[in-house]
Amino acid sequence: MRTRLTQKLCIEHPIISAPMGLAAGGRLAAAVTKAGGLGLIGGGYGDSEWLEREFAAAGDERIGCGFITWSLAQKPDLLDFVLAHEPAGVMLSFGALAPFAQRIKEAGVMLICQVQTLALAREAVAAGADIIVAQSAEAGGHAIERATFTGARDRRLSRGRSAGYVLVAAGGVADGHGLAAALMLGADGVLVGSRFWASTEALVQPELQAAAVAADGDSTIRTTVVDIVRGYDWPPPFTARVIKTRLTMDWHGREGELAQPAVQEREKARYWKAFHAGDVENTCVLAGEAVGLIRDVVPAGKIVRRMVEEAEALLARSADTLGSVSI
Amino acid sequence: MRTRLTQKLCIEHPIISAPMGLAAGGRLAAAVTKAGGLGLIGGGYGDSEWLEREFAAAGDERIGCGFITWSLAQKPDLLDFVLAHEPAGVMLSFGALAPFAQRIKEAGVMLICQVQTLALAREAVAAGADIIVAQSAEAGGHAIERATFTGARDRRLSRGRSAGYVLVAAGGVADGHGLAAALMLGADGVLVGSRFWASTEALVQPELQAAAVAADGDSTIRTTVVDIVRGYDWPPPFTARVIKTRLTMDWHGREGELAQPAVQEREKARYWKAFHAGDVENTCVLAGEAVGLIRDVVPAGKIVRRMVEEAEALLARSADTLGSVSI
Repeated sequence: MRTRLTQKLCIEHPIISAPMGLAAGGRLAAAVTKAGGLGLIGGGYGDSEWLEREFAAAGDERIGCGFITWSLAQKPDLLDFVLAHEPAGVMLSFGALAPFAQRIKEAGVMLICQVQTLALAREAVAAGADIIVAQSAEAGGHAIERATFTGARDRRLSRGRSAGYVLVAAGGVADGHGLAAALMLGADGVLVGSRFWASTEALVQPELQAAAVAADGDSTIRTTVVDIVRGYDWPPPFTARVIKTRLTMDWHGREGELAQPAVQEREKARYWKAFHAGDVENTCVLAGEAVGLIRDVVPAGKIVRRMVEEAEALLARSADTLGSVSI
Repeated sequence: MRTRLTQKLCIEHPIISAPMGLAAGGRLAAAVTKAGGLGLIGGGYGDSEWLEREFAAAGDERIGCGFITWSLAQKPDLLDFVLAHEPAGVMLSFGALAPFAQRIKEAGVMLICQVQTLALAREAVAAGADIIVAQSAEAGGHAIERATFTGARDRRLSRGRSAGYVLVAAGGVADGHGLAAALMLGADGVLVGSRFWASTEALVQPELQAAAVAADGDSTIRTTVVDIVRGYDWPPPFTARVIKTRLTMDWHGREGELAQPAVQEREKARYWKAFHAGDVENTCVLAGEAVGLIRDVVPAGKIVRRMVEEAEALLARSADTLGSVSI
């Protein structure tokens, strides 16, 4: 399955794994690349020891890395560290591109910019993005309120013919149906988070993955609770999509109270204890609406192959049976 | 383009026009049917004189009608009135189905149920729905927070093999890309609102249509302002997507103040005066994220033909060029 994205990245399948903080380590990224996509390590909130270890875990596979840009701004040296590993691409999301975009381009590394609005898309074009990821509200973790269905379409329409970037859809894609639909909407490929989060190689507690497998698509909510409780200073209007656990729903709507220092400190300790223990209801589970499409925890390579085979079959069948295209 | 939907409804193209209150009159519905889809008149908040006139305006074309179910419950006789016109289908959305579903089925009329969650989808199956419309948050007007991209997929997955209904995706579909993507996601067709709202035959002030043509996909917001100001008692969690006009943004976040009787009465008068005068900034414009994909106001028949031709070309091309499917 060749698209502008596979050509741009010299990969086999138009699938990128999302650089999910803590969850997307070197083994996951390497497995996605090995299967013909491109794997990205999650730079998260910037822990250089973690990054060192995970780049090592990726071995010789060609992978990239993604950053939460506003967080990277607090530890800008991490970019040099990552560039020294000669990544296949660096993805920036959630913050001002200017200081970093140029360094990435100068290093001869592919600049991947994830955007959530048309204004951010224009900023990414101005910064020289090679790949623009149009991310939407159904995504797990941080995003804002736009849907893939229209978002990918109008990012596509908004691009000038001369702009050389390729477009990737993110948010809600977890199977071949989603990949085929994204291509129909005008995207050149997909960036997939939750589905890879529920893979064997992801650095995720099995109990949290089991909760995602058990959840349906109506089981998630966008909220700021997960950031307040962890003490992360996310700028508005970003919120995070999580599964509706007890902790989340207890505090959703009472964010002011949660933010009080004594309360936050107590809840933060409980959050991380439960997170590491796999105690689902007493932590937050960052995952997208696509959890409704996840039925098992399998190796990332199998996820890539399934998606591609399913999408190819759908696309072939749609033309074979153009007189009757229900699938 | 034949799908389960075209077979079920005996129509040519898998496209239904949304029963938008006030906007979707008889001429629009008739034009969509004449072009090979199925047009639905918008029952809205239940004005029998308006319905009488619009059924007459549809002439002899085979059309259907849609209701806001909680509003219909306040004027249940309207259903008899509509059934007496032998509609091709009656769509129920936003309320308890039980009292009406049975009467529709008994009249031998196709039961179309629009749902926003899996629980509502199950209720629709239990009520014997012939067609289930999976509506999502990018839609204009009322809905709740689920996206088409995942919503249509997991409604599809959730249906038992024995359930005989066909699935229609709604929200964010305004062109052939959207139609083709919806089919890839597993839907049998699409229900289209905003794109037909911006058609020649829609009962919409030209100034409001011009505002939608000028808007991009980031120009809309989900809010309760439009219902509070009009005095409509919408049950939570439904909100309405509107273009960010001055009136909307002045009151969004100050809903409690707006709901005070003296304020609401004053603003309601201003709202309707501006609405009828085409004074965009001082009223609300119910429209979906798909406004970013609307570039012109054209006859509904042309919209249907464009969508079908574009979708067919995309589906054919995807297979012709399966080695390079970027579109």
